[in-house]
Amino acid sequence: MNPETLFWIVPLASIIALAFAAVFFFNMKKADEGTDRMKEIAGYVREGAMAYLKQQYKVVALVFVIIAIIFCVMAVFDMQNHIVPVAFLTGGFFSGLAGFIGMKTATYASGRVAQACRDEQDGLNKGLKLAFRSGAVLGLTVVGFGLLDISGWYLILDNTGLIEAEGISKLVEITTIMLTFGMGASLQALFARVGGGIYTKAADVGADLVGKTEYHFNEDDPRNPATIADNVGDNVGDVAGMGADLYESYAGSILASAALGAAAVAGANGTYDEGLKMVMAPMVIGAVGAILSVLGIFIVRTKQGATQSQLMAALNRGINFSGVLIAVAAAAVLYLLGIENWLGLWGSIVIGLVVGILIGKVTEYYTSFEYKPVKFIAENATTGPATVIISGIGVGMISTCWPVIFIVLGTIGAYLCAAGEFMFTGENMSMGLYGIGIAAVGMLSTLGLTLATDAYGPISDNAGGNAEMSELGESVRSRTDALDALGNTTAATGKGFAIGSAALTALALLASYIEEIKIAALRFGETFSPSFFSSDVINSAELAKMNIAQFMAKFDVTLMNPKVLLGIFVGAMLSFLFCGLTMNAVGRAAKSMVEEVRRQLSDKDVFEGRKKADYARCVGISTQGAQREMIVPSMIAVIVPIATGLLLGVPGVFGLLAGGLAGGFVLAVFMANSGGAWDNAKKFIETGDASFCGKHTPVHDASVVGDTVGDPFKDTSGPSLNILIKLMSMVSIVTAGLNVAFSLL
Amino acid sequence: MNPETLFWIVPLASIIALAFAAVFFFNMKKADEGTDRMKEIAGYVREGAMAYLKQQYKVVALVFVIIAIIFCVMAVFDMQNHIVPVAFLTGGFFSGLAGFIGMKTATYASGRVAQACRDEQDGLNKGLKLAFRSGAVLGLTVVGFGLLDISGWYLILDNTGLIEAEGISKLVEITTIMLTFGMGASLQALFARVGGGIYTKAADVGADLVGKTEYHFNEDDPRNPATIADNVGDNVGDVAGMGADLYESYAGSILASAALGAAAVAGANGTYDEGLKMVMAPMVIGAVGAILSVLGIFIVRTKQGATQSQLMAALNRGINFSGVLIAVAAAAVLYLLGIENWLGLWGSIVIGLVVGILIGKVTEYYTSFEYKPVKFIAENATTGPATVIISGIGVGMISTCWPVIFIVLGTIGAYLCAAGEFMFTGENMSMGLYGIGIAAVGMLSTLGLTLATDAYGPISDNAGGNAEMSELGESVRSRTDALDALGNTTAATGKGFAIGSAALTALALLASYIEEIKIAALRFGETFSPSFFSSDVINSAELAKMNIAQFMAKFDVTLMNPKVLLGIFVGAMLSFLFCGLTMNAVGRAAKSMVEEVRRQLSDKDVFEGRKKADYARCVGISTQGAQREMIVPSMIAVIVPIATGLLLGVPGVFGLLAGGLAGGFVLAVFMANSGGAWDNAKKFIETGDASFCGKHTPVHDASVVGDTVGDPFKDTSGPSLNILIKLMSMVSIVTAGLNVAFSLL
Repeated sequence: MNPETLFWIVPLASIIALAFAAVFFFNMKKADEGTDRMKEIAGYVREGAMAYLKQQYKVVALVFVIIAIIFCVMAVFDMQNHIVPVAFLTGGFFSGLAGFIGMKTATYASGRVAQACRDEQDGLNKGLKLAFRSGAVLGLTVVGFGLLDISGWYLILDNTGLIEAEGISKLVEITTIMLTFGMGASLQALFARVGGGIYTKAADVGADLVGKTEYHFNEDDPRNPATIADNVGDNVGDVAGMGADLYESYAGSILASAALGAAAVAGANGTYDEGLKMVMAPMVIGAVGAILSVLGIFIVRTKQGATQSQLMAALNRGINFSGVLIAVAAAAVLYLLGIENWLGLWGSIVIGLVVGILIGKVTEYYTSFEYKPVKFIAENATTGPATVIISGIGVGMISTCWPVIFIVLGTIGAYLCAAGEFMFTGENMSMGLYGIGIAAVGMLSTLGLTLATDAYGPISDNAGGNAEMSELGESVRSRTDALDALGNTTAATGKGFAIGSAALTALALLASYIEEIKIAALRFGETFSPSFFSSDVINSAELAKMNIAQFMAKFDVTLMNPKVLLGIFVGAMLSFLFCGLTMNAVGRAAKSMVEEVRRQLSDKDVFEGRKKADYARCVGISTQGAQREMIVPSMIAVIVPIATGLLLGVPGVFGLLAGGLAGGFVLAVFMANSGGAWDNAKKFIETGDASFCGKHTPVHDASVVGDTVGDPFKDTSGPSLNILIKLMSMVSIVTAGLNVAFSLL
Repeated sequence: MNPETLFWIVPLASIIALAFAAVFFFNMKKADEGTDRMKEIAGYVREGAMAYLKQQYKVVALVFVIIAIIFCVMAVFDMQNHIVPVAFLTGGFFSGLAGFIGMKTATYASGRVAQACRDEQDGLNKGLKLAFRSGAVLGLTVVGFGLLDISGWYLILDNTGLIEAEGISKLVEITTIMLTFGMGASLQALFARVGGGIYTKAADVGADLVGKTEYHFNEDDPRNPATIADNVGDNVGDVAGMGADLYESYAGSILASAALGAAAVAGANGTYDEGLKMVMAPMVIGAVGAILSVLGIFIVRTKQGATQSQLMAALNRGINFSGVLIAVAAAAVLYLLGIENWLGLWGSIVIGLVVGILIGKVTEYYTSFEYKPVKFIAENATTGPATVIISGIGVGMISTCWPVIFIVLGTIGAYLCAAGEFMFTGENMSMGLYGIGIAAVGMLSTLGLTLATDAYGPISDNAGGNAEMSELGESVRSRTDALDALGNTTAATGKGFAIGSAALTALALLASYIEEIKIAALRFGETFSPSFFSSDVINSAELAKMNIAQFMAKFDVTLMNPKVLLGIFVGAMLSFLFCGLTMNAVGRAAKSMVEEVRRQLSDKDVFEGRKKADYARCVGISTQGAQREMIVPSMIAVIVPIATGLLLGVPGVFGLLAGGLAGGFVLAVFMANSGGAWDNAKKFIETGDASFCGKHTPVHDASVVGDTVGDPFKDTSGPSLNILIKLMSMVSIVTAGLNVAFSLL
């Protein structure tokens, strides 16, 4: 079939996804809001969330404007394409808008989910459906905007006179420019993740440390002044943050694959038509995935009194159903596009899907209390908080082993399938890397659905909070708790997808950096010197014709080049520095929160519930803390790649990206899994299933310490690393012109 | 001067160092042992230590025999030089022997140091001198055996008919074979570090958790059944473990530099004489450093009632004095050898010395309670153990920034100085890498002295333990405490040297791997295929003539080769896996210890001091725990590089080593500094200097949790990573023949 015809599925899927998002949103809005007290509570959370977003977008807008101006200056000096500043801004805009809509939905939905759970007949099913479809608003908005941004830019660049090149070169240039809107999305995502992560954990840690540990309040006790901030935080971190993160991965994987496909065909002296097939494949597969995700959403339902595993099965049914359909549809798309090695590429896609699922399974094994690792941590609570921490860190570190092995095997598999031969050579490298990129597309093809299960988590959590604060009684709370517990497991799996896709996307982006350097060189002039202190001169036109292996040899990006090795060191260190800064940020913000909560609760009237706690003040502390603390780590992610490029040139940037990718991936898995394991070790002790269990015992107190430490691990530092990895690549790609223009050593 | 004449300084220095070690040992033995109770306590510690070593060496010997047999088989199939199995065993033997002597000395010395501190007139000075000179026995033994092993093998290989090659090729072959005895030293060191680290922390955590936290005993209370095991542990970990570790770094840096020097000259078609100068330079500088370290030892003394900073000044005077002398002497050696670029190489050496000192300073800043980071952690203790942990992890992660920057700048500087021009090119790479190696030699040239300050720590610690258990009174204990506190700071600095030199040595070893592949290829046959599935054929003779850049291009070891990238992933993951396994090992062993201590103290007679605690049982638990748990992590370090070589070939091995090096370095710095900072945050709270301070308060209890978590961080997992990094390189080098013979992809 003509690729240009198939392309129209992309804007169509975008419209379908956005339309269903709108339908789900307005259906949710029609649901009953419950009692006045429930409305009041939901109102507080909504106000807090919007106040935060307003503040956040103000700061982010300022940063975006500054960077866009810098890009304009670079464009004037021919170090960058003139469209980049605009593309950068649209990426950031859609990413932020998706987060905003998701959060708006979540804060409207949670009170209504609590109300749905009050139905004694069908409350659990109603609650699940409402929470899940509200979560789906985020999933479909992200997917819809992603496809809209991609297809819109493609149409503009393809049909206006903005690109002068012709034939296959035009495709290469279009896809490489489109890639740069990923930087806007990345940067927006980093702010959302870091700011949101600091916000949510400052509130959570503050609420727990004083409320739970010192005063033995229950979760969400309305007397706890930080409880509204805690509920706001769930939305800020897990809805807006996660949405922006995955928007970026989703768009990034499609764009990187498209760029790699065009480059691979151009490198093999292929035609425009051959290139177009490669460019269309990831876009169309993404689009088909979006449509099938909508189908999957309708399958998720359960019956009253369902057990945890039945609830899980209900969600899994939807995911598995769409997953299988997408696998089948992907084969059809590749075949219809008339790609010669369609079977191989299909193999790469299926590998991506499978690796995503496997990483999710490993995450579940290491973080669910059904299995040995979490039970081991729980047992270690009998000897106090220190052994809880030691064992949790031990388990988290060990848990990095399988995800790395899966990524390694998956990458090898995706490469070889796409290359169509059982060996790695310099010649098949472009196609192999295209396979890695398209594996990421496969992994994220069910995103509309998996993101729905993610956003579902904080909605159920908030529903529980609303039920508690509105004193709706035990039976309602037990239903929201069941929904919430499920949300914790799906959140863990969702994190597996987020980090797995980040790794594959970043691998693919490495190759895009090469293309960007080539294009920048052509734009810069006929020749350039790779270094100030070198008599070596590189011919831009010759460079443009080199394949990846030749390019790497020309710039000497080998592992014995000290600049490469030093870049790897800096990259690995940066992940740690970044985590350290965000951990301490949470620590500082949490400390202010603890002091405020202690101050308020020292008033006996507040403690005994006669006087209303000042929720707004705690919301303000979290908001300010997050805004103040998010700037430095985020700016590091932007400045270091640029500085490395200027000081160590192309080899240094490659080292930085590879070191950051490997180090960041492992660190992210460690932090996410340690945090998740601590959380569930505490929950296991609360179940009372083992002899040493029980609430408000010293053993339980020890496990609460683990849970509190795990909060910034799993919800601030760990997930922010996904974006750090990708943002550093994106920044390098967008500022490649600087590398060409300057190079110190 | 004739290099062959200068060579004789090496065996001479070895004899001088060993002679002074003997003198210090026998002088120490002559000192007064104190009261019967003191002798009894010292006897328990000595017995426990020797029982452990006996068990340890039994296990290690078994592993060594198995590996030696495998090497013999490989040698029979021409995959390895026939001398390797023997060299492997001598490296392991001397490394173990140095640890044994150091530990023997330490366990004899500590009681005597306690006795020396009883002198009311001059006790502090006497104690310092005795403890320090006993520590110097380890320092000088390590240096002496290192130089003995190096000079002995050189004489044998140079003067017997074992090497058939002639001229510069002979030098290349000699130095590359000698390098392989480093693997024996590495493996011995890893067992010592891991086993010792598990032993010491199981005992320490067990003793603290029950004794200090549950029963509010003081440190080293004789009623605590784990207290002897705790004292034994200090020796096992910080004397035997640290000694074996640095033996390996010391020998490794000299051997790697020598091998690089020979290869650099051979690559530039230089003569045998030119090569000999390069080979001799690191050996002779090491030897001169050993002699000057002896001088430095005599300078360390102090007066009664000296403050902490005066004590520190006394140690620093010795180190600075030798450091300056060595810097001067190194210039003389390089000039006398007649090396053309002697000034440049001297620059590399000085850079190494300075980087070592700077990393030590950073370590001090982040781990001493004189500065902000530790005070920040201490403040966080006011909000409970969770915030102590969060802030400690945050501080540790941030602390990785400067050491990486120093290593990066130092590496660049050492490379450019040695290369003699201000740029990185393919041509000057061999000389540049030689500069990096010789910078490591410079960093370690004061090892005789710095290791003395390291071993001094556990001796003083044990002296304090002896004083407490023998009830010698407050004034004696305060003097041993002053010595001990000093030991904690010097231990932190020593760890900076250990990790810094490991990084530089490992960088240099990367280059040696290339030489080993070349030699293995020549031994293997005229041609070989770099992969099973490749029609490409490599000519061994041509390969041997390639420079580093050409070699890397031939094997396509670039950062876009998926095998390289995957190797980096696995390398980074391995550091985490290794740490996770050792953390959990400590957790498990500590748990058995806690249960045993609780059991014994539940007997009222033991608790009230009427019945003697069963120390031997706790010693046994630690010993067994350490032996059982050290096997798996150690074997991973051996098996993974071999498996990677077989599966991913030369590019995969390079990726593995680079990823392991960068990831391991950063992780090691993080863990060591977090652990040190928690330790001193607790000590800061004990000083009572801030409003929130004081012993046995909730704030103090929170800080004890941090300290306990920090124990395996700083004394088990963190320092073991140094050796992991080097051992993986060594294993790859020694099994390079396998890579040539097999290659899967």
